[in-house]
Amino acid sequence: MMSAWAPASVSDIEIDVATIRAAHERIRPHILRTPVLSSPALDAAVGAQLFFKCENLQRVSAFKARGACNAVLSLSAAEAKQGVVTHSSGNHGAALAWAARSRGIPAWIVMPSNAAKVKLDAVRGFGGTIRFCEPTVAAREAACAAVEAETKATLVHPYNDWSVIAGQGTAALELLEDEPELDAVITPVGGGGLLSGTAIAAKGLRPSIKVYGAEPAGADDAYRSLRAGHIIPQTDPHTIADGLRSSLGEKTFAVLSSRVDRVETASEEAIVRAMRLLWDKLKMIVEPSSAVPLAMLLERKISLDKLRVGVILSGGNVDLDRLPWQT
Amino acid sequence: MMSAWAPASVSDIEIDVATIRAAHERIRPHILRTPVLSSPALDAAVGAQLFFKCENLQRVSAFKARGACNAVLSLSAAEAKQGVVTHSSGNHGAALAWAARSRGIPAWIVMPSNAAKVKLDAVRGFGGTIRFCEPTVAAREAACAAVEAETKATLVHPYNDWSVIAGQGTAALELLEDEPELDAVITPVGGGGLLSGTAIAAKGLRPSIKVYGAEPAGADDAYRSLRAGHIIPQTDPHTIADGLRSSLGEKTFAVLSSRVDRVETASEEAIVRAMRLLWDKLKMIVEPSSAVPLAMLLERKISLDKLRVGVILSGGNVDLDRLPWQT
Repeated sequence: MMSAWAPASVSDIEIDVATIRAAHERIRPHILRTPVLSSPALDAAVGAQLFFKCENLQRVSAFKARGACNAVLSLSAAEAKQGVVTHSSGNHGAALAWAARSRGIPAWIVMPSNAAKVKLDAVRGFGGTIRFCEPTVAAREAACAAVEAETKATLVHPYNDWSVIAGQGTAALELLEDEPELDAVITPVGGGGLLSGTAIAAKGLRPSIKVYGAEPAGADDAYRSLRAGHIIPQTDPHTIADGLRSSLGEKTFAVLSSRVDRVETASEEAIVRAMRLLWDKLKMIVEPSSAVPLAMLLERKISLDKLRVGVILSGGNVDLDRLPWQT
Repeated sequence: MMSAWAPASVSDIEIDVATIRAAHERIRPHILRTPVLSSPALDAAVGAQLFFKCENLQRVSAFKARGACNAVLSLSAAEAKQGVVTHSSGNHGAALAWAARSRGIPAWIVMPSNAAKVKLDAVRGFGGTIRFCEPTVAAREAACAAVEAETKATLVHPYNDWSVIAGQGTAALELLEDEPELDAVITPVGGGGLLSGTAIAAKGLRPSIKVYGAEPAGADDAYRSLRAGHIIPQTDPHTIADGLRSSLGEKTFAVLSSRVDRVETASEEAIVRAMRLLWDKLKMIVEPSSAVPLAMLLERKISLDKLRVGVILSGGNVDLDRLPWQT
């Protein structure tokens, strides 16, 4: 999907906090203003004051609604008429189908033939048209290209797209409106869209703020890429955090390299423990990916003693029949 | 705990919406302003527009924090110094311990010797002193009376107490501030404290509003008492909704008789289905008791076609190791 070596510089970054404010104005009628919640028990567990932005309560139960909506609403009328296409086995596919429906345009979602039925149902429920492909990167890209050629639909990449990144940044915009005195903000990292948008928004609004990414140790391509200074694609991810198995793109790599203070990892054991703590103490249904920042804090990968820390809970799509703490 | 036959008249009701407003002023610094959430999928499932007041996100994860806090803050300085006592195997015990701690006074909680460890830990976690008793009504009342005699602590009944009822009514006050155009509001019914406070607040603010109670069919004493015109105590409750096994008191019976439009029941099967729907669609961890109003709506016990309906989600204390849809 991308070359293994993609140099990037700050000048590659085409958006700033003003872009994110404009995205917020654009998508605000369609998305939900999600609440920011706290828990004394979780604060005690990590020794900091945590403010959780509950994007599990967002449309399609994931922050992905923001980026997809901004991308769809940013199309010209002529472009929009042709529809949108993407490849996704997860929340971005459902989000794009949802966003397309809200503009009344078609959406084609390329999904692997082994995708879970619940994911297929979500896309269909929002009126998206599914195109199946073999579960390989090559097959997925070929299928996307075929839909583009056939329909003239616009490709909306899950994260390596400035309008998507700007949309994802609106969650941090709202979080800092509600809690302007934050010392730090942490998001999970998969392809890096949420972390990129968050970093641009948060550093733009509050230059002193620290921005951290939290990644599963079993899919630590961002951690390794930032240390290497070039993109190292994720080849064989092993993590329960199914939203975080992708590799960085050149746009998100450029933002993470220049705007993010650190990316750290969390073990699978800590991710499951953090997920259960969020269910138990915050009374929120979150998916494993959402628990990675708290897991990283539980493992003391970053010292945040007594600071005020925003955490973006990325989504809540999880199989209620199979909970990871039940064997 | 109460006679099997307790006549009541409207004149017995000692509180009104002004009392509830005063309670709200009193407790506001201590409680959380909980969000009101909606779900298009749940609206479609019942054919109405639902507004869920998320008291599962309240302090101690239950609306009980409101009533206990109002009762504790309503004590005179001399009374407060002696502390408070109650009997409870559930959320009220934890709520009273929490409220007492926030005023810096002692709390004794009488609990049955077979109470779940998680409930004991909650009370102890808030600094309450547990007194064990045999799991019978007689033993519980004797233990409470012994603590009262020994300590001069004030008894704070879980629901048959006007300051507790006034505190519980503050949830409806907030709900109607957020959604002033509601056509109806529904709460679960156990001892009737939440439903009583809700009815007094809601009818006081908006006389045209309908107020309904939802009760498990396996613990339907309120349903039967209202039809009989006198209190019929619950003798042998069989329901997963562990917060709703109590009988009405004479105060809550008086309010329900005069201010509540209807109480209807829900089957166990519908309660489990509704609980799962709330987890799945609202992404909220709620306990079975919280799901009874939605269960009643799923069973079409009350016709609410297209109306705007508030539902109070009463609490979120649930064992994450044993989910009722898993065998």
